[in-house]
Amino acid sequence: MKQGEDTSVDKNCEFDLDVEREERCGFPEVVYGQGKEVASIIRIFHRQLEQGQPCFATRVSAAKAKALQTEFAQGLDNRLARTFRIESPHAGAKVGKVAVLTAGTSDAPVAEEAMETLAWAGVNALLIQDVGVAGPERLRKRVHQFADADAVIVVAGMEGALPSVVGGYVAVPVIAVPTSVGYGASLGGMAAMLGMLNSCASNVCVVNIDAGFKGGYLAALIAKNRHK
Amino acid sequence: MKQGEDTSVDKNCEFDLDVEREERCGFPEVVYGQGKEVASIIRIFHRQLEQGQPCFATRVSAAKAKALQTEFAQGLDNRLARTFRIESPHAGAKVGKVAVLTAGTSDAPVAEEAMETLAWAGVNALLIQDVGVAGPERLRKRVHQFADADAVIVVAGMEGALPSVVGGYVAVPVIAVPTSVGYGASLGGMAAMLGMLNSCASNVCVVNIDAGFKGGYLAALIAKNRHK
Amino acid sequence: MKQGEDTSVDKNCEFDLDVEREERCGFPEVVYGQGKEVASIIRIFHRQLEQGQPCFATRVSAAKAKALQTEFAQGLDNRLARTFRIESPHAGAKVGKVAVLTAGTSDAPVAEEAMETLAWAGVNALLIQDVGVAGPERLRKRVHQFADADAVIVVAGMEGALPSVVGGYVAVPVIAVPTSVGYGASLGGMAAMLGMLNSCASNVCVVNIDAGFKGGYLAALIAKNRHK
Amino acid sequence: MKQGEDTSVDKNCEFDLDVEREERCGFPEVVYGQGKEVASIIRIFHRQLEQGQPCFATRVSAAKAKALQTEFAQGLDNRLARTFRIESPHAGAKVGKVAVLTAGTSDAPVAEEAMETLAWAGVNALLIQDVGVAGPERLRKRVHQFADADAVIVVAGMEGALPSVVGGYVAVPVIAVPTSVGYGASLGGMAAMLGMLNSCASNVCVVNIDAGFKGGYLAALIAKNRHK
Amino acid sequence: MKQGEDTSVDKNCEFDLDVEREERCGFPEVVYGQGKEVASIIRIFHRQLEQGQPCFATRVSAAKAKALQTEFAQGLDNRLARTFRIESPHAGAKVGKVAVLTAGTSDAPVAEEAMETLAWAGVNALLIQDVGVAGPERLRKRVHQFADADAVIVVAGMEGALPSVVGGYVAVPVIAVPTSVGYGASLGGMAAMLGMLNSCASNVCVVNIDAGFKGGYLAALIAKNRHK
Amino acid sequence: MKQGEDTSVDKNCEFDLDVEREERCGFPEVVYGQGKEVASIIRIFHRQLEQGQPCFATRVSAAKAKALQTEFAQGLDNRLARTFRIESPHAGAKVGKVAVLTAGTSDAPVAEEAMETLAWAGVNALLIQDVGVAGPERLRKRVHQFADADAVIVVAGMEGALPSVVGGYVAVPVIAVPTSVGYGASLGGMAAMLGMLNSCASNVCVVNIDAGFKGGYLAALIAKNRHK
Amino acid sequence: MKQGEDTSVDKNCEFDLDVEREERCGFPEVVYGQGKEVASIIRIFHRQLEQGQPCFATRVSAAKAKALQTEFAQGLDNRLARTFRIESPHAGAKVGKVAVLTAGTSDAPVAEEAMETLAWAGVNALLIQDVGVAGPERLRKRVHQFADADAVIVVAGMEGALPSVVGGYVAVPVIAVPTSVGYGASLGGMAAMLGMLNSCASNVCVVNIDAGFKGGYLAALIAKNRHK
Amino acid sequence: MKQGEDTSVDKNCEFDLDVEREERCGFPEVVYGQGKEVASIIRIFHRQLEQGQPCFATRVSAAKAKALQTEFAQGLDNRLARTFRIESPHAGAKVGKVAVLTAGTSDAPVAEEAMETLAWAGVNALLIQDVGVAGPERLRKRVHQFADADAVIVVAGMEGALPSVVGGYVAVPVIAVPTSVGYGASLGGMAAMLGMLNSCASNVCVVNIDAGFKGGYLAALIAKNRHK
Repeated sequence: MKQGEDTSVDKNCEFDLDVEREERCGFPEVVYGQGKEVASIIRIFHRQLEQGQPCFATRVSAAKAKALQTEFAQGLDNRLARTFRIESPHAGAKVGKVAVLTAGTSDAPVAEEAMETLAWAGVNALLIQDVGVAGPERLRKRVHQFADADAVIVVAGMEGALPSVVGGYVAVPVIAVPTSVGYGASLGGMAAMLGMLNSCASNVCVVNIDAGFKGGYLAALIAKNRHK
Repeated sequence: MKQGEDTSVDKNCEFDLDVEREERCGFPEVVYGQGKEVASIIRIFHRQLEQGQPCFATRVSAAKAKALQTEFAQGLDNRLARTFRIESPHAGAKVGKVAVLTAGTSDAPVAEEAMETLAWAGVNALLIQDVGVAGPERLRKRVHQFADADAVIVVAGMEGALPSVVGGYVAVPVIAVPTSVGYGASLGGMAAMLGMLNSCASNVCVVNIDAGFKGGYLAALIAKNRHK
Repeated sequence: MKQGEDTSVDKNCEFDLDVEREERCGFPEVVYGQGKEVASIIRIFHRQLEQGQPCFATRVSAAKAKALQTEFAQGLDNRLARTFRIESPHAGAKVGKVAVLTAGTSDAPVAEEAMETLAWAGVNALLIQDVGVAGPERLRKRVHQFADADAVIVVAGMEGALPSVVGGYVAVPVIAVPTSVGYGASLGGMAAMLGMLNSCASNVCVVNIDAGFKGGYLAALIAKNRHK
Repeated sequence: MKQGEDTSVDKNCEFDLDVEREERCGFPEVVYGQGKEVASIIRIFHRQLEQGQPCFATRVSAAKAKALQTEFAQGLDNRLARTFRIESPHAGAKVGKVAVLTAGTSDAPVAEEAMETLAWAGVNALLIQDVGVAGPERLRKRVHQFADADAVIVVAGMEGALPSVVGGYVAVPVIAVPTSVGYGASLGGMAAMLGMLNSCASNVCVVNIDAGFKGGYLAALIAKNRHK
Repeated sequence: MKQGEDTSVDKNCEFDLDVEREERCGFPEVVYGQGKEVASIIRIFHRQLEQGQPCFATRVSAAKAKALQTEFAQGLDNRLARTFRIESPHAGAKVGKVAVLTAGTSDAPVAEEAMETLAWAGVNALLIQDVGVAGPERLRKRVHQFADADAVIVVAGMEGALPSVVGGYVAVPVIAVPTSVGYGASLGGMAAMLGMLNSCASNVCVVNIDAGFKGGYLAALIAKNRHK
Repeated sequence: MKQGEDTSVDKNCEFDLDVEREERCGFPEVVYGQGKEVASIIRIFHRQLEQGQPCFATRVSAAKAKALQTEFAQGLDNRLARTFRIESPHAGAKVGKVAVLTAGTSDAPVAEEAMETLAWAGVNALLIQDVGVAGPERLRKRVHQFADADAVIVVAGMEGALPSVVGGYVAVPVIAVPTSVGYGASLGGMAAMLGMLNSCASNVCVVNIDAGFKGGYLAALIAKNRHK
Repeated sequence: MKQGEDTSVDKNCEFDLDVEREERCGFPEVVYGQGKEVASIIRIFHRQLEQGQPCFATRVSAAKAKALQTEFAQGLDNRLARTFRIESPHAGAKVGKVAVLTAGTSDAPVAEEAMETLAWAGVNALLIQDVGVAGPERLRKRVHQFADADAVIVVAGMEGALPSVVGGYVAVPVIAVPTSVGYGASLGGMAAMLGMLNSCASNVCVVNIDAGFKGGYLAALIAKNRHK
Repeated sequence: MKQGEDTSVDKNCEFDLDVEREERCGFPEVVYGQGKEVASIIRIFHRQLEQGQPCFATRVSAAKAKALQTEFAQGLDNRLARTFRIESPHAGAKVGKVAVLTAGTSDAPVAEEAMETLAWAGVNALLIQDVGVAGPERLRKRVHQFADADAVIVVAGMEGALPSVVGGYVAVPVIAVPTSVGYGASLGGMAAMLGMLNSCASNVCVVNIDAGFKGGYLAALIAKNRHK
């Protein structure tokens, strides 16, 4: 009941398969894998495939991922992100552009979850790693790569300062994803989260700690709507 | 000494078997199973059965449950709720009606503990699952099922918003049970608990995080007293 | 009593006058007086009186209360509770019984708000003051006065220990109302609130700090439903 | 509304007038009025008017607003929002659509600041008030009014539950603005903020407590970019 | 480096054996066993025995206790308290009287550590268990047993209410020892600790969570000094 | 000193005059002056004087103190401590010795309240000011003055380090009184209080922030009992 | 700037004038002006002038500053910093170089206190304002101005991100001074302070919120010692 | 992603090998070993050795240390500090002097990490252990050993009082490193950290909990710059 680290978001909001969801909410249903039987995931995925929907599960353990791969040879298993995804055969070309920036390499799993979410959502995505604020030139040299994005996701732990700096470079929303990377006074990501909420950049908004899926989902909505 | 997750409530309030308790407090004694020898539980249950009382233990591990089942073949072991219960042969018909609602499937163990408590207390109970606020129609379609209850127990983690919504639909007490379901800024259930305490619905009260037993006990008191 | 802005609860939940509310929620609408123009309160009260409903406003300042008294000579102004109330001419006899206990005299304003709420709701109420835990005999001598209540409201600040003790004496719900009475480590009532949530008595539930109205409302619902 | 020093966001990020800012960041500079001499604001506004830019100051006290109105007869002073604004004569037609929802009337000042920000940014805006979760039908009847917005801003204090409910109705970003409305366990808006960060709706992001300007700015960016 | 649960107190204050300590501080040195080599403990004990001092180690693991018992056959190993103790052959008769009360059986390990500390210090001690506040008669029947003590130690978790009640019965210091017994809103013992610090009884003081040794040490000082 | 409402402790525990209290609890009743009518204080004092008891009121405002002085010419008004006291004509010689140490001059009001409490209780007291840890020689030169006390009260804000240092010099209980002196990370005295609770000295116990009365009361109990 | 009682640091550590302090601690005594009689400050300053020491008082109110200016015509009153200072006639040339950076104009009072402290200490100081992280080019253009400093003081509120960025540009200690500038989730400067403590730059250390004096004192020690 | 206890600091700020770093930041790059492949560390070390740089990795597990030792026979593995270090053959004589003090033996791992950092940086270092405040004479006897240091690092958990005491003895910066040593109210080192931030000594600054590397790095910068 008391669970550790989930980065996905629909844990407490399980649905019966809701095939009109795409119309109402913009995207089909996503399976939150933690605490769910692999048989259930397989059943949901088969129904989604029948509907021509792409399939996506987050927080999938190695054992479950193996079972899913056996059932769905075409599926894409990302062990760093802990996701499993099946592209729809009817998927059109990807649209828009979202950049995912990380402060350090330890933030990679959360960033990967955001990347997989963007791929599932049909949005072009670019990962730019290790541009933390203590090496300010590293970020500066990469600005041209993300200045034209529809939205920027910034994944950072510790002091959570990167979103404010990024916010000063772009004219699009910056979605800040605090991570639990850090120790001591990082308070499990709370210090980064509070810092991001206090950002002096006007275009920074924040999601829960380690919520890579949510960051990706929001950015995808923005990009998709813009290019509709 | 430092213990993890208990959902029951009398841990710190162990009694010698107090056979007049039913008269004074409305219900016979409940055994908090955590940290108690199975032999002690068996001894207490035998004494309660002699008195014609129903028996109920919460926080019973799988090993203890197995030993109890061997001793008491008629006992009811609920592994999701982690409870073990023996109905009294003198039990009358169940009275009243309490609805137990959950926001998501992860809240099920806490809800089950409340359901078992209601069964032990002799109160009719209805479990309505997965009616979290992000799918508002799901709750709306079920209102007729719980509108006539004597009390409603709402079990929810994460943002803990469901009790406020339920409170607007009913003219009975809503007992909010926050759960430790969530991650990051959920702070082990504190975010849900604070949200519930700030509910703008006037008929919402709150118990401790994961305290399914306490929620069930309070609702049972209300239902029993109403139908006395 | 060190209080924030208000002890009442519908601040964030303002309604257009909702005359069917009584049917759906058990009681007519209550006016949260803080931050509301006295002219608006007068207008709402006139409409409620036309409907034959009782009128009740919480968090009414002295200036507003004076204006209300001028307009409604029959109104009852309680300066300790900061409420203003007009009884309905169609009001039937009061029903049930709710006891309101305080730990100390400083808790009186919150207790009075609960008492006024019970009066408005048509429920018999008894105020028992100054029975804090450090003088255990004081409570003990009064048990016979509240043992037969439909619900007990316990108002206490500082360590918030009184609800647990009361819970051991009665077979009805104990609604704990923490108050902001205290200093230093009382953290504005948070210490009392946390203590009450951790109560080892199974029949204790909790509402927000200084929420006398909410405590009264919940107890009134329980009493009214029981005597319907 | 119990507010700290300010609801606007660029307090710590004062600029020399940066006339290229519009190009880099999407919008011209905004003056954070708190702690700034009115003479400075007047000087900045004159420079911005020379550049054909719209002018906007947040957190403007009544005294400063009066001085600004004397200097700029064409200016728009909003006392509820505490803003002062001068439209550009070169302003084109407003574009897009953003809905601003409040849970209760006490949230109005923060919502008004968001509304003024949207007006300054040249985005069509719709204010929908008093649709808090404890009266679920009130929101439901208004869904058709905001379902086609480019983004939805949800302003709520206390338990902060409204953004999750709204998130289930729309396929656009929901920008949650927690307010300091509440008392006791609301912890000055922290309870609402934590609740929003734990939202089970995938399309909810969060800004600082009482940050109406930031909410409006983000929504405006999304709407402007979509309709470019 | 990050350590879980220690109840002893000299962890951060390790001494070279300081044989004059008894004179300056009232008692000889105590060995904090956690993170200390058993060989070191043995060496210290031999030196203390040579000096005719009693030996006492807290937080001794089962493995270390076994090694100590092999070396010192006369030693007293208390597995519940996790202590190991060797009485001095020169020990005089015990003096004074300290009562150790617990709210529930889960508080026993902390209470036992206090009992062992009192034994080591040469003070008579009486353990009174399971007198938590939700069963107020249980405490009342035992008052005569501790009313004449030199000091009372009250060990309690959850809401931490017991010290206030005990404080009203005695004319001696009540040393409150909060325990980490509890779940959810108990915050690892912080709720109990805050409650005890807010006690309305004037004779209650508080030590760290689970600090049975410290509680015992303080009570022993009071008793010893009184009977010197 | 930034204080909340009060430094005294019986706020929530008001009594009817309880003339046997001295026998049961060691001392007669103390009047907590805050929020109490001066007429009530006068009435209580007259009754206490009739019984030959000493009178003591804490948290007495300047206006109330003036009225008390007019009524009781023999009374002792201490404006720094905010207390008013009348010695009993039957008072015997003072007994014992308690030292009250402060870290800095800003801690004086809390220390004075402790001093007045000791005077009322009939215990000899010595005030030693400004011996904070950053000037370690200052304390060292005064050790001989308090080494023979029955108990030592240490009043300190900011980092609250002084009790640990004092604890190493004496063989009696050290009662640590944290004060709200400090700013920023002192969190209104919480930092000092947490530091004191973590003291590595075994003879340190803690009371609430700014609780000078409670510190004095506990020390007086220890001294009185020792010299009975 | 929302400040508590004071930004200076010796409040709790008052000394009798300690004329050897300069030798032992590197600098003469500083007067913490808050809560100190102006007559006392004048007396201390006269004694310091006799010794040929420079005089410095922090947290001096306008009224006290006026009295000091009347007494000491040569004194330097800085109303923004709230300091009063008298240079020693024997003062040698200033040495070293310390840069004081602020994130925004609201941080100016804390920065000024640091500047005055550096002037009193005889260290060259340079103030660089408004180089907050959301305008990254502003800082970059000024790096050459502080790259050769002996130490850099960074004063910032809100998210407190600036020290990390500055840390990446210099090979000297960066002393981070969090300020209480901000609102809502800034928690009175705690968010900035936590962010700074989690800085990923290895050369960043932190002092208390609004502690401009302490930041200046530490930087002065480093600069003075380097140029001795 | 959620990581326990790291004492090093560049976790979130991973670099490609940056050979000019020494010039810009004063020291070559340090490898944060946690979560990094040993093959990567070996590759980085080989490149650093080619450049004639000293090599240093913190948070190195036993398994990784063994592999590093096999590859680099000349490397120095410190298991208490969990570091691995290779001295440069071109290293000059060590300069300056830094003292590292601990309050208790449990603080040793953090102190050792600081010692290794100082060795890597080429600074003379002296370790003084077990001088916690509860035995004040222990520190006093050692003052002459660290009074002439360029900087003092004080490593302490629990109440974190030692830096204030040390600060009163020296005229150089005191870098306080709080440790997670403690239990209960130590809150994983937060109590020590808050205490240190509130230090009444003007020359104390603070780094993150258990951040031995950061403490050493800062002290080394101060010492190196002073002796350049």
